[in-house]
Amino acid sequence: MCPDMELIGNVKNDRFARYLGIKLLEAKYGYAKAEMEITENHLNGLDILHGGAIFALADYAFAAASNSKNITVGINVNITYFRSPRGRKIFAEASEISTQNKTCGYKVDIYDEDGELIAHLSALGYMMQNRGN
Amino acid sequence: MCPDMELIGNVKNDRFARYLGIKLLEAKYGYAKAEMEITENHLNGLDILHGGAIFALADYAFAAASNSKNITVGINVNITYFRSPRGRKIFAEASEISTQNKTCGYKVDIYDEDGELIAHLSALGYMMQNRGN
Amino acid sequence: MCPDMELIGNVKNDRFARYLGIKLLEAKYGYAKAEMEITENHLNGLDILHGGAIFALADYAFAAASNSKNITVGINVNITYFRSPRGRKIFAEASEISTQNKTCGYKVDIYDEDGELIAHLSALGYMMQNRGN
Amino acid sequence: MCPDMELIGNVKNDRFARYLGIKLLEAKYGYAKAEMEITENHLNGLDILHGGAIFALADYAFAAASNSKNITVGINVNITYFRSPRGRKIFAEASEISTQNKTCGYKVDIYDEDGELIAHLSALGYMMQNRGN
Repeated sequence: MCPDMELIGNVKNDRFARYLGIKLLEAKYGYAKAEMEITENHLNGLDILHGGAIFALADYAFAAASNSKNITVGINVNITYFRSPRGRKIFAEASEISTQNKTCGYKVDIYDEDGELIAHLSALGYMMQNRGN
Repeated sequence: MCPDMELIGNVKNDRFARYLGIKLLEAKYGYAKAEMEITENHLNGLDILHGGAIFALADYAFAAASNSKNITVGINVNITYFRSPRGRKIFAEASEISTQNKTCGYKVDIYDEDGELIAHLSALGYMMQNRGN
Repeated sequence: MCPDMELIGNVKNDRFARYLGIKLLEAKYGYAKAEMEITENHLNGLDILHGGAIFALADYAFAAASNSKNITVGINVNITYFRSPRGRKIFAEASEISTQNKTCGYKVDIYDEDGELIAHLSALGYMMQNRGN
Repeated sequence: MCPDMELIGNVKNDRFARYLGIKLLEAKYGYAKAEMEITENHLNGLDILHGGAIFALADYAFAAASNSKNITVGINVNITYFRSPRGRKIFAEASEISTQNKTCGYKVDIYDEDGELIAHLSALGYMMQNRGN
């Protein structure tokens, strides 16, 4: 399922992600993909998927991708919502776009089962320490 | 506790907020305040409060403040994290900064029990319909 | 130089871009590329290229890409800076990532003459009217 | 006009700001106010004030406010546009919202001569060095 999970110890123990039913599908240096099955618990008062749930999945994919290399915390995250998803699952795919001395930039595409983009996230991470390589 | 809750029917039925233990403390036209008690379910793999949980609380406060007037959906949300909270609860306070024809802007301050700012969120909402006044 | 410029009449007459020495290199539906030669007028007090000048170039590329289809105004723009450019020119390449009923999302990569990414911009546009097709 | 300008040496020599006609009205620790007179050079192809010019003014106010204390560079800036200005000048007022070890957060309100808010900017700065106190 996720052969590189050893690299991302602190992501494995993410209880918020677990509580929301988020699953890591793939993670390697600078890249990760995760999914979330939409349940009643993810809905807002308009009966659509909550923006906060979409954010949580995307933020988790960013964490998995960035922590494969360094202990990284998000310091700024920007999300734009395009439309509500169709189907029962959504996916988030995070890719590094730049890494500097102390900071890194990631983009995350969030899409539904039809492959339609539902939101886009940009994240700026701060690398707290290198993982000894 | 929240005398204006009748105005914000669609916020009352927010199951994602309920699942995360978010409580609305106050809501009126253009303003809302909410709180969340931090539990094991809100922690990330580094044993600190998950950025996605902070976002969820702030986004909910924005929804409560903006939906008191119109059915409003967030189309862009930007969050900056300053530090981890101390104590067992965090609070979010949302205030309108501008309302135009179809869009509105809100700022949300998120702080801990010591009153220290832990994050700041800017939200841009799109008003889908007026609530008949 | 730019065969599709007829499509983007209102971009052609952008006096701010002209004042800053910005040139459009390519523009078609949902895509544009522009360049700016760095002069003394673009420097900040630290003698490096001003973040506002980088923004201006990227915002212009977004306008050229989005206005090829509709009259579009930016309503939210988020920029992350990675490093200072090397060389005498910078380039911005804007691509549509999603278009909805009234809004559209674009990403813009800004890079230097070495092809190194110096900044990344996400823009959310509001389409004021269709261009009659 | 600006008694604390000695503190912000690197802001004084901002050639991009000068080229755009930006004037610093006030600057002290964690706060600055600046203005820009709108000329033909600031207009976009729709004959309205260019979003990049609004950004430049706001970014400059952020720089003046944050550099009064430390050498600070913007690493993420998020701007939301609400409406076009009325009158011939616009103003930007920057205030610190949080300062941490290495990073700081600022908000900037941009308004016109009628005092109407036209845009709002959030900036995240990275402090490169302390100014010896």
